[in-house]
Amino acid sequence: MGKDQPLDEFALIAKIFAPLAAGNPNAFGLLDDAAIIPPRPGQDLVVKTDGLVAGVHFFPDDPPGAIAQKLLRVNLSDLAAKGAVPHGYVLTAAFPKDVALSWLEAFAAGLAADQAEFAIQLLGGDTLATPGPLTLSLTAFGHVPAGSMIRRQGAKPGDGVYVTGTIGDAGLGLAALKAETLQLAAPDTAFLVERYRRPRPRLAFGQALRGLAHAALDVSDGLVADLGHLAGVSGVRVILELAALPLSEPAARWAGLETGRRLRLATAGDDYEIVFAAPRAMEPRLAAAARSAATPITRVGTVEAGAGVAVLGTGGAPIPVAQGGYRHF
Amino acid sequence: MGKDQPLDEFALIAKIFAPLAAGNPNAFGLLDDAAIIPPRPGQDLVVKTDGLVAGVHFFPDDPPGAIAQKLLRVNLSDLAAKGAVPHGYVLTAAFPKDVALSWLEAFAAGLAADQAEFAIQLLGGDTLATPGPLTLSLTAFGHVPAGSMIRRQGAKPGDGVYVTGTIGDAGLGLAALKAETLQLAAPDTAFLVERYRRPRPRLAFGQALRGLAHAALDVSDGLVADLGHLAGVSGVRVILELAALPLSEPAARWAGLETGRRLRLATAGDDYEIVFAAPRAMEPRLAAAARSAATPITRVGTVEAGAGVAVLGTGGAPIPVAQGGYRHF
Repeated sequence: MGKDQPLDEFALIAKIFAPLAAGNPNAFGLLDDAAIIPPRPGQDLVVKTDGLVAGVHFFPDDPPGAIAQKLLRVNLSDLAAKGAVPHGYVLTAAFPKDVALSWLEAFAAGLAADQAEFAIQLLGGDTLATPGPLTLSLTAFGHVPAGSMIRRQGAKPGDGVYVTGTIGDAGLGLAALKAETLQLAAPDTAFLVERYRRPRPRLAFGQALRGLAHAALDVSDGLVADLGHLAGVSGVRVILELAALPLSEPAARWAGLETGRRLRLATAGDDYEIVFAAPRAMEPRLAAAARSAATPITRVGTVEAGAGVAVLGTGGAPIPVAQGGYRHF
Repeated sequence: MGKDQPLDEFALIAKIFAPLAAGNPNAFGLLDDAAIIPPRPGQDLVVKTDGLVAGVHFFPDDPPGAIAQKLLRVNLSDLAAKGAVPHGYVLTAAFPKDVALSWLEAFAAGLAADQAEFAIQLLGGDTLATPGPLTLSLTAFGHVPAGSMIRRQGAKPGDGVYVTGTIGDAGLGLAALKAETLQLAAPDTAFLVERYRRPRPRLAFGQALRGLAHAALDVSDGLVADLGHLAGVSGVRVILELAALPLSEPAARWAGLETGRRLRLATAGDDYEIVFAAPRAMEPRLAAAARSAATPITRVGTVEAGAGVAVLGTGGAPIPVAQGGYRHF
């Protein structure tokens, strides 16, 4: 109690984490108690925090770089859905006492690669020792022009409902990692596992959505559940057409047009795509934004007056979904 | 994996955490993916993150409200030492699966009481289930006039070294909780345990220190270790006089003028007082600031050219301290 570190915390910070903060002078080389985010006139700071626990949100023997990148990207995915430009992040990491230096180096290398890709830096953090599983929390910061953050609230009857990319890959990747037999070829399985392990936040497209979308969020709990959140906060009803669900080739090979399998993909979670509602009249501008961000988008449903989520099977008939949404637990 | 909650996460957020966010419209009732911190022209945002693990940083059977307040206050203490005015916080909480609703309610009540005391709100967060111990991470935000955050770096030869309040109480409180025999009366022990459990961030005084102190940080690792950080980053040597250490009455009853006991108090940690370096010529202004913030301050040493920390025993003679500082592990 009070004496808490298996490694020398200061050496750990200096060797592993301080290099990740070197690109931002307001992180003070992690040698101060706090970092600074200077004001940007006319810009709101968007703040998102999300954590992961080994054995709950990832496998303890996942590659450390992929764990680091998943942690960062699930947060960047939220910033993307809000239309924000990433600025930086702080990290709290509770490491098991027996964590190896090589593991930490690979973890930091994953962060370093993503920092370069997304043009952000580590601003600060805290390292702890835990007798329990590796537990990570990350708070990400981004900027939007003041008042322009895309909310969950705001979908309107008549809007189209759209998703980026493809849905359900990560869920199948997780199933494969859990040794479920999917009867897919090895390259298909590898693709799906990679989609599970390393989400791709749709940042460029999310920024282009500002002013076009009425409401948006990222797909983390599962498309049906996340549409339930959107419907609930917006006070509308969402119709989801499973026949329109955009699938990757591996997922399409697995699901075909079977309603049950497509429903599973639409409730699997961990997609980290953006789902959004926008006026149908915006479709030409949405298509242009999708092209310029090199991000495919697909209309998967519509917004109506009412409440909850209605799911239409591949034949077009409504299918029962508990409480108009799916819940994790 | 991917399915992660023992409680219904949405009910938990709505019932326990959303009321804590009700006071700030930019938290969106915790119903969105992110919160907003609007820009304050001419103000830097100060960001601090710190975590706690049950069984490492607090006792699992500590009162839940006290755990919540310790988590919040250790972060506010950093903001205090940086001269910042608190704005709000985000929280990641990984709860054991068997956490009781009554425990969560008491935890939230602790946060609510502190939110009222410190005029802040919860802005967002993430709740997780863990098979391990309760693990908490909090990121706190505050504001300072741009460029005026008090750094660790900047102490100069000739400066006095000062601390707020009293030193060593929390360490004795922890010892008492661990059933060490201190031969103190019950009220003394209760006072020391309270000092361990519920630090009092020196916010008003920290804000008054802007422009007066050359360097500051809060005392968390132990006064000697934290002076080592200040000396290292500032490139100076600090002389600490144990005879000058400000002690509470219970700690003074325990330590008297024994050098060994005073050294233990100066290395015990968890004080969450502010230690700072300032020109001796500032002493009248420091005294006025201390009076107006109702915060006692004491000069405990001086800054010299050189490196490391030298500790003088109560007789005035230097005493050996490993590496000029004390380390946790």
